[in-house]
Amino acid sequence: MSDSFVLKGTVCYSRSFTEIAVHPAAYVVCEEGVCRGVFDALPAVYEALSLTDFGERFILPGLVDLHIHAPQYPFRGTGMDLELIDWLETRAFPEEAKYSDPDYAETAYRQFVDHLTRSATTRACIFATRHRESTELLMDLLEESGLVTCVGKVNMDRNAPEPLREASAALSARETRLWLEETAGRYQRTKPILTPRFIPSCTDALLEELQTIRQDWNLPVQSHLSENPGEIRWVQDLCPEADFYGDAYDRRGLFGRDRRGQSFPTVMAHCVWSPPEEVARMKENGVFVAHCPASNTNLASGIAPVRRYLEAGLKVGLGSDVAGGHTESLFRAMTDAVQVSKLYWRLVDPEAKPITFPEAFYLATRGGGAFFGNVGSFEPGYEFDAIVLDDSLLPHPQPMTALQRLERAAYLSLDLLGLHAKYAAGRRIF
Amino acid sequence: MSDSFVLKGTVCYSRSFTEIAVHPAAYVVCEEGVCRGVFDALPAVYEALSLTDFGERFILPGLVDLHIHAPQYPFRGTGMDLELIDWLETRAFPEEAKYSDPDYAETAYRQFVDHLTRSATTRACIFATRHRESTELLMDLLEESGLVTCVGKVNMDRNAPEPLREASAALSARETRLWLEETAGRYQRTKPILTPRFIPSCTDALLEELQTIRQDWNLPVQSHLSENPGEIRWVQDLCPEADFYGDAYDRRGLFGRDRRGQSFPTVMAHCVWSPPEEVARMKENGVFVAHCPASNTNLASGIAPVRRYLEAGLKVGLGSDVAGGHTESLFRAMTDAVQVSKLYWRLVDPEAKPITFPEAFYLATRGGGAFFGNVGSFEPGYEFDAIVLDDSLLPHPQPMTALQRLERAAYLSLDLLGLHAKYAAGRRIF
Repeated sequence: MSDSFVLKGTVCYSRSFTEIAVHPAAYVVCEEGVCRGVFDALPAVYEALSLTDFGERFILPGLVDLHIHAPQYPFRGTGMDLELIDWLETRAFPEEAKYSDPDYAETAYRQFVDHLTRSATTRACIFATRHRESTELLMDLLEESGLVTCVGKVNMDRNAPEPLREASAALSARETRLWLEETAGRYQRTKPILTPRFIPSCTDALLEELQTIRQDWNLPVQSHLSENPGEIRWVQDLCPEADFYGDAYDRRGLFGRDRRGQSFPTVMAHCVWSPPEEVARMKENGVFVAHCPASNTNLASGIAPVRRYLEAGLKVGLGSDVAGGHTESLFRAMTDAVQVSKLYWRLVDPEAKPITFPEAFYLATRGGGAFFGNVGSFEPGYEFDAIVLDDSLLPHPQPMTALQRLERAAYLSLDLLGLHAKYAAGRRIF
Repeated sequence: MSDSFVLKGTVCYSRSFTEIAVHPAAYVVCEEGVCRGVFDALPAVYEALSLTDFGERFILPGLVDLHIHAPQYPFRGTGMDLELIDWLETRAFPEEAKYSDPDYAETAYRQFVDHLTRSATTRACIFATRHRESTELLMDLLEESGLVTCVGKVNMDRNAPEPLREASAALSARETRLWLEETAGRYQRTKPILTPRFIPSCTDALLEELQTIRQDWNLPVQSHLSENPGEIRWVQDLCPEADFYGDAYDRRGLFGRDRRGQSFPTVMAHCVWSPPEEVARMKENGVFVAHCPASNTNLASGIAPVRRYLEAGLKVGLGSDVAGGHTESLFRAMTDAVQVSKLYWRLVDPEAKPITFPEAFYLATRGGGAFFGNVGSFEPGYEFDAIVLDDSLLPHPQPMTALQRLERAAYLSLDLLGLHAKYAAGRRIF
């Protein structure tokens, strides 16, 4: 398949943080996997490229999921009457333990990858489990799917039930190095990401090991941060020397900047209760926030003050956080982000203006896309990710603008009803 | 079609407020439109009835929507970045004004009724517009659909733009009487409900007229109550004599009890900010709360303290409140009710225990069903409403209980993907 082509349709993308550009019957050009821009009339220089005309259907940048747990997909939307730590112990950990069995992992991960492939997501940061073998299987399946992902074998050597806890820091490190060696050079679209589960799951010795591995392999990092008040108190008890939760990562060179002062991409999920010093450190270190509104609601964690983080200059994207979140739909995550920001404004902080729909759209595209480089836009030079959405199954008696149709499609999670086509990094996925 | 039959499948219904009864491969019997109960083995006395075997599919009581605006359906999920009063003026009122045109009304209402028919809703309390003719058209279409509904021609003689405001209280009353006369005896399943839009839309003179009409025709009442802080201040200005918002209705005999002390069914949407005296009056007068979590979030109204209302002994059901709410899905309303109650617990009142999924299921079935009589359960003597749900399109690698499957189906709004079958008041709808 060629990665140079032209698509025609109702093209929308974020012109700025607050504005969605709408180009009806426009052309968007992909040349060797890179977007050349959006044109109301096709420039002559691109006329030789193959053209697919999607009519009035939407052509949108692919959406970016900065936080999702692949092994939790099987139980999404169940056991939702629990809070974080109880939920981990009764739902997440027992399910994740099953991934020591490669057969189970294959069945479960195939279902996950199949659904993610059909979703609006083109890029994702994905947690696997602590198991090397099944993590590699997941990476194989993702590579085959055409999606572009960062996948992490999870590290956890304390505070987890026996079958899921790694026996020692040294063993966890050894397995991690083996995983990196076995997958090195194996994939085009699937990259490893260092994944200490969260501070309560990782001894100091393990974090120290991971720091060395991170430097040796120049890896990005993903983890959890300041999700739940009980969890935060726990981290304070476990790491009395840390100034705040994020500092416990930063002291180990796992928070966007290593001990040599070198930067690396880091994404922290949740940040519901980050104190000002933590926000300042994230800004300083360039750490991304994966805002996961559904999960923060389902686990009764609270509402992340995203407006405040944006005002502070933090980089923010959206995460579905399956299975704290109950769906992989990033259309749902967008509208959840708008919704919880309204409740935050009404109930917590009348100075924190609600997130608008165009802003949420930005977060789901360019906001999270920045973690992957030039991703999440149709501006020239961006990697070409696109989804094609057909909303014609929703009749309406009155005229509607494209922007109204798009907002409605998002509120109704139309991505779950099936997309018409999808492209990631210049390749058509279906 | 006979209204006596037996259905077989995975039967679930609320055994109590906190518990869902699950009967796999069970029989539920409908005789002359009335449920005779659920049986693990079919009693001989019912063996002559026709049996439909739905396999492992769920058979659930039909869901009850206590608050939905039919004319707002066309713009659901759009313009969601606005607060109540702005939203009414820029979105709701201009759209509702179009229903003076019967052709527009027919196109729009057909789409609404078509979607509501395919939804999980079997019963609903529906706002039309102020227009008599198109309200009757809506009632005709609903009657044809087989759904069981209360439909209100809206009354509004102040604080609305010219084309939508009725010219006088007398005119509004005249149109209302004409509407009642024209529809009297015309329907089996479609009943009129008196519908003063809300206090800001109704002069004292109009409320006085409506009180008389209500008594003359022995009508139930639906309206809005204590939705938004700005709205509540407005009502205080408009009705300085009222002790609280709900008292403004009660003084006119439109709040569950008339001046003669006679009771009548009344449902008030929202009740986000009801003060204790209002809650006490609602309890005293038997007024139902239509809890509309999506709408209260979308319009940044806040979170209704449903746990508090339940503890106070109020009758509570759920409302989609399309188009403050963006979808007719009551599965979504159930899970929204759970979700916002968690945020309320976390952010507002740590003594108000979150609503559980079984409790939300109760609210969507028996809770709202009580407004219609013995509705919302498969216990013997209940009117027979049922929906048949197929969740087999969601694969899972692990075993799941029926209750887990049901919770997941609700969180994923599986009702929007299409039900397998539906029955209302003993009649099969599809």
